[in-house]
Amino acid sequence: MKQTQTKSLQTLFCPKSIAVIGASRRPESVGGSLFSNLLFNGYKGILYPVNPKADSIFGVRCYPGLSDVPGPVDLAVLIVPNVVVPKTLDECGRKGIRNAIIISAGFKEVGGEGTLLEQAVKKKVRKYKIRLIGPNCLGIINTDGAVSMNATFGRTMPIEGNIAFISQSGALCTAVLDYAKGEKIGFSKFISMGNKADINENDLLLFLKDDPKTKVVLLYLEDLADGRRFIEIAREITGEVENRKPILAIKSGRTPQGARAASSHTGSLMGSDEVYDAVFAQCGVLRVDTIEELFDYARAFSKQPIPRGRKVAIVTNAGGPGIMATDAAIRYGLDLAVLSKSTTHALRRALPSTANLANPVDVIGDARHDRYEAALRAVLKDPSVDGTIVILTPQAMTDIEEIARVIGKAGKNVLKPILGCFMGIVDVSKGVRILEDHGIPNYKFPEAAVRSFSKMVSYDWWVGRPRTQFKHFTVQKKKARSLIQRAIRAKKHYLSDIETFQILDCYGFPLLRHELAHNVTEALHAAHRIGYPVALKVVSPHIIHKFDVGGVLLNIKDPNELIRSYDRIIDSIRTKIPKAHITGVHVQEMAKTGKEVFLGMKQDPHFGPILLFGLGGIYVEALRDVSFRVAPIREFGAERMMEGIRSYPILRGLRGEKPVDFKILAECILRLSQFSVELEGIEELDINPMMVYATGGGAKICDARIILKPA
Amino acid sequence: MKQTQTKSLQTLFCPKSIAVIGASRRPESVGGSLFSNLLFNGYKGILYPVNPKADSIFGVRCYPGLSDVPGPVDLAVLIVPNVVVPKTLDECGRKGIRNAIIISAGFKEVGGEGTLLEQAVKKKVRKYKIRLIGPNCLGIINTDGAVSMNATFGRTMPIEGNIAFISQSGALCTAVLDYAKGEKIGFSKFISMGNKADINENDLLLFLKDDPKTKVVLLYLEDLADGRRFIEIAREITGEVENRKPILAIKSGRTPQGARAASSHTGSLMGSDEVYDAVFAQCGVLRVDTIEELFDYARAFSKQPIPRGRKVAIVTNAGGPGIMATDAAIRYGLDLAVLSKSTTHALRRALPSTANLANPVDVIGDARHDRYEAALRAVLKDPSVDGTIVILTPQAMTDIEEIARVIGKAGKNVLKPILGCFMGIVDVSKGVRILEDHGIPNYKFPEAAVRSFSKMVSYDWWVGRPRTQFKHFTVQKKKARSLIQRAIRAKKHYLSDIETFQILDCYGFPLLRHELAHNVTEALHAAHRIGYPVALKVVSPHIIHKFDVGGVLLNIKDPNELIRSYDRIIDSIRTKIPKAHITGVHVQEMAKTGKEVFLGMKQDPHFGPILLFGLGGIYVEALRDVSFRVAPIREFGAERMMEGIRSYPILRGLRGEKPVDFKILAECILRLSQFSVELEGIEELDINPMMVYATGGGAKICDARIILKPA
Repeated sequence: MKQTQTKSLQTLFCPKSIAVIGASRRPESVGGSLFSNLLFNGYKGILYPVNPKADSIFGVRCYPGLSDVPGPVDLAVLIVPNVVVPKTLDECGRKGIRNAIIISAGFKEVGGEGTLLEQAVKKKVRKYKIRLIGPNCLGIINTDGAVSMNATFGRTMPIEGNIAFISQSGALCTAVLDYAKGEKIGFSKFISMGNKADINENDLLLFLKDDPKTKVVLLYLEDLADGRRFIEIAREITGEVENRKPILAIKSGRTPQGARAASSHTGSLMGSDEVYDAVFAQCGVLRVDTIEELFDYARAFSKQPIPRGRKVAIVTNAGGPGIMATDAAIRYGLDLAVLSKSTTHALRRALPSTANLANPVDVIGDARHDRYEAALRAVLKDPSVDGTIVILTPQAMTDIEEIARVIGKAGKNVLKPILGCFMGIVDVSKGVRILEDHGIPNYKFPEAAVRSFSKMVSYDWWVGRPRTQFKHFTVQKKKARSLIQRAIRAKKHYLSDIETFQILDCYGFPLLRHELAHNVTEALHAAHRIGYPVALKVVSPHIIHKFDVGGVLLNIKDPNELIRSYDRIIDSIRTKIPKAHITGVHVQEMAKTGKEVFLGMKQDPHFGPILLFGLGGIYVEALRDVSFRVAPIREFGAERMMEGIRSYPILRGLRGEKPVDFKILAECILRLSQFSVELEGIEELDINPMMVYATGGGAKICDARIILKPA
Repeated sequence: MKQTQTKSLQTLFCPKSIAVIGASRRPESVGGSLFSNLLFNGYKGILYPVNPKADSIFGVRCYPGLSDVPGPVDLAVLIVPNVVVPKTLDECGRKGIRNAIIISAGFKEVGGEGTLLEQAVKKKVRKYKIRLIGPNCLGIINTDGAVSMNATFGRTMPIEGNIAFISQSGALCTAVLDYAKGEKIGFSKFISMGNKADINENDLLLFLKDDPKTKVVLLYLEDLADGRRFIEIAREITGEVENRKPILAIKSGRTPQGARAASSHTGSLMGSDEVYDAVFAQCGVLRVDTIEELFDYARAFSKQPIPRGRKVAIVTNAGGPGIMATDAAIRYGLDLAVLSKSTTHALRRALPSTANLANPVDVIGDARHDRYEAALRAVLKDPSVDGTIVILTPQAMTDIEEIARVIGKAGKNVLKPILGCFMGIVDVSKGVRILEDHGIPNYKFPEAAVRSFSKMVSYDWWVGRPRTQFKHFTVQKKKARSLIQRAIRAKKHYLSDIETFQILDCYGFPLLRHELAHNVTEALHAAHRIGYPVALKVVSPHIIHKFDVGGVLLNIKDPNELIRSYDRIIDSIRTKIPKAHITGVHVQEMAKTGKEVFLGMKQDPHFGPILLFGLGGIYVEALRDVSFRVAPIREFGAERMMEGIRSYPILRGLRGEKPVDFKILAECILRLSQFSVELEGIEELDINPMMVYATGGGAKICDARIILKPA
């Protein structure tokens, strides 16, 4: 199925003939602009303008209707009023056209009538098995010389390159085309998806996976058509196939924190934007905030090899910018390479005595190309250097162009990245051109170069990360399911702590020992079995906040105290909520003090069950220091979740403390993952707190709660 | 004194005559480049090249020595070998020259011999009362048409503008000049400070404060010559004088966290970079990380009025970029203005039915200048709008230049800022030029525009912040001083908790009640006076970690338990540290549970006493969630310290909790401020924890420790 889709996109991007329905003679109109973009940018196939009101357009014979077009048509581009679109698709279907682009707007994006029209469009394309881009888009571009198709109404034909750009915003495409023209950025494919009535980012990613012309994929997204499928596909492209390709994505429409109603601890911590962060982290997509960053990174990925580590060497003719690059390197998690002795020797021979031979290597303000060349070659040869950033400020003696040339040459046949940072705009421009002709991307300021290097390091980390499997635990799935079913049948909204504990028990979570006692005798027996000290908690269907009504007593040390405590609880409830039915008390082992963590699960409308992990307590809630993952996760995913919180150092142990029992913690997260995908009907699970003890000491869940899905 | 300095800088920047000692005929040499920059950029005074080897340079009569120069000389520029510099300064002195720029390098920055040479230079300028820029700098530029002086060896003369740029890196200056040329950014003064042997950023700020040509000051700093003086001067310029001016600063050389040795809790939390953050926050200097941001912001400040609030309206012809701007607005703490009904009505009349009338206002992709004009005028008129960002993507119908013109016109006589965001580079370039001719800065992408708007809002906040005074508490300063002196005389490194409590008591801090008891009888009396429950802590000069040796017992409920506890402590110490001398025990009131905070003070080598505030406990240490201020602080400063921690919501109360007693907390911070400036000899003070109770409940210091300055 997916295979066929990919094939059909092949014809969409490489059609032998195109009918432009609504082509126009007025160059400033959409129909005129699009047709002239096709005609005057060297399209290699046959163009058929279709317009009943014209005999020819820009010298090309025009056809009154699609049925009048003599030959077969691979692709139809529709620039007709929105209401005419469904009828036109009928004509396409009858003509046997299997690929279409609907440029026209006035569909889902305007609501009302438009939404209905879009449904009609979807029906038609399903009926005729048409693969469709749009509606409401700018069109698509394939720069491949064998096709050379600009089927957009943009102002510009981009140059050929190895970057594919996919955008959910058509208007952004026009800005990006203009920016790319200025920065001389080339594209392999340029795709405006519009409303995604048929083809969406997943289809396009599958196509680009096998596109030999594409080395880097850029996405501008406002939503995902199918989040779980996106994770699968993106994960494969970024790391699993031989010709893997980095994907850089902007996901806009970040919602303000807390805008979502909070029904629980877990709920209050999970905003949709955090989920997108998790999704991208999980499939190796590098998330980016701005268009500028997107292309800064894309230029590095498209032109330079990926560094095999985070050790960067900086060569500069200026101290200040060298410090700024160092600051940025620290900020973006890079290491400054410690140069080897032989490198330092080589530098000492080549540079004046006032030069700084340590990293950042300062070749001094009066440096000419010979010093740059010697310094660059020395650091590139050093095995402790993973890549370099070469900074140049245009000083009086600086032979900018010659320096650009030696950098270009030094980069040949070296498998380490070189990023240029010729600072300025005008005086350095010729040098920048020379650098870029040698495939070395240039950045105006050190920070951008460092950030780009760092993004490449992140990708290298992703590609080389440990590969682990999903872990399967033997659990009592059936029993857990029936417990949930029973609660659903009883029309409950949430489960009591006892019921929740029973279900967690089925999944092998470490629980405090606990028993339900219906009277004081049973409570004494239970406490005897569990061992003192114990806690008592009232069990009643009418009481939610047990603490507030005196329904909880902790740290009960012996049978006498237990008897007194039991009575105190019952008395307190009878006084405060006389009508409450008291089922009994929950006798629970007292938890030893450990580090409090919480684990959670929550259903997301787009991605299904999301796992949450963080420290317990008020600090974490206030600081929103939580890591997220879409379930299920692999063993390594559990590690990343633990390491992913800012307060991770607390788990690792501060000031000589022992680390917590990470093994049991990871196991609990993986059990939670299995729980989340195997059990249906659960909207949220809050495990809070779970006490984790020092290495080898295990963990104990103290409290937990399940909220069921609304009926 | 300072007045005279300012005056003398006036001549430095507006000299009537300049001697260029070391001027050269070779245009590519520093002496040639600098002299030609003066000669060919319209300098309005008299130039005297001095060089024994030339009769004339570029047609100007050259003098063999300074003594041969016929007229008086206001400014000498030295481009001579470093070792000749002191002698040359003698000649300057004899000639009565009072201003000099030393371009030559080879001084402090190279160490060794160079450091000695720089000391010689300092002596000379003091002797002759010369105000000196440099050594080791690019020089200075004054674009004022009445002076038109380019006394640098840069490649470029910048255009006139209202931005002053001060840099501690000469090489960065060359890059900035080139960048500014490309971006058409104008400067009032352009200053490369070099090694700051005499004139430093403080002198320059004082000069620029009164410079009518300067509206915005940009700083690139690697260190501060006098931190406390910087705070005073900057605070005045940014907010206190009528012609206040924003200061934007890059401080590079951020040290990696934790690189500094940690002698205590307070010490481990304070890195030098955090201190700079505090310094800048305290004097209204807007800290910036990158050169690109520096000029993004500078362009907004230099050309547009400051918004009077954070409510931004966005007008766009493209949905996607509108969403990106909204995302950025949220990220940078702006509010999207809620448009009034009458604005919405006006928009409805002017825009097509598919337009989005809410903010961001989407005029739709086919919008021409009329729609932009109507939308922009409507939102600017709305009292709930503090300023606007106008986004344009170059679509097929977009009449870019005309739109730029109507935006420019709409901005006339409006006291709200308009920032442009014409996205792209090539197609939009003419429109961008038109915008900028109208004084509207343009940004290639929404994020940069939003960030700039947000920086202006920060400045507006600073200018309009509540002005408070230093608070003076009546304290027992004399007694506190004599306690410290006694400890210093006894050659102590740190003070015991009892001594620390005594000193804190002198300063009116809220302490737990406590008494020293030398035996069990005294302890019983003390406990009676204090009231049970109490804590006992052993007092011994030989024991630091009392807890570890059983020297602390808590929550003692009655006299019997006290007697038992007393014995247990004594026994435990006798067993574990038989040789320890036991002074007695400290009987202390038990603290009720509250929110734990810590207060600290630490001496900084550059800024003197620094105050620290944060929550207590391990979370805060792990997350380094602390606010800093240089002492002394005003009342509002205490509020900013409390609000400045990320975990502030915890103090305000989560989930319906009452807020803590902010009044007492603020008072304690202010007492700490007074303490820090009045008492000498203290290296560090740690108050940790202090319990703070709900509003009206006060606070209690549980533990505290003073480390004395090393002898």
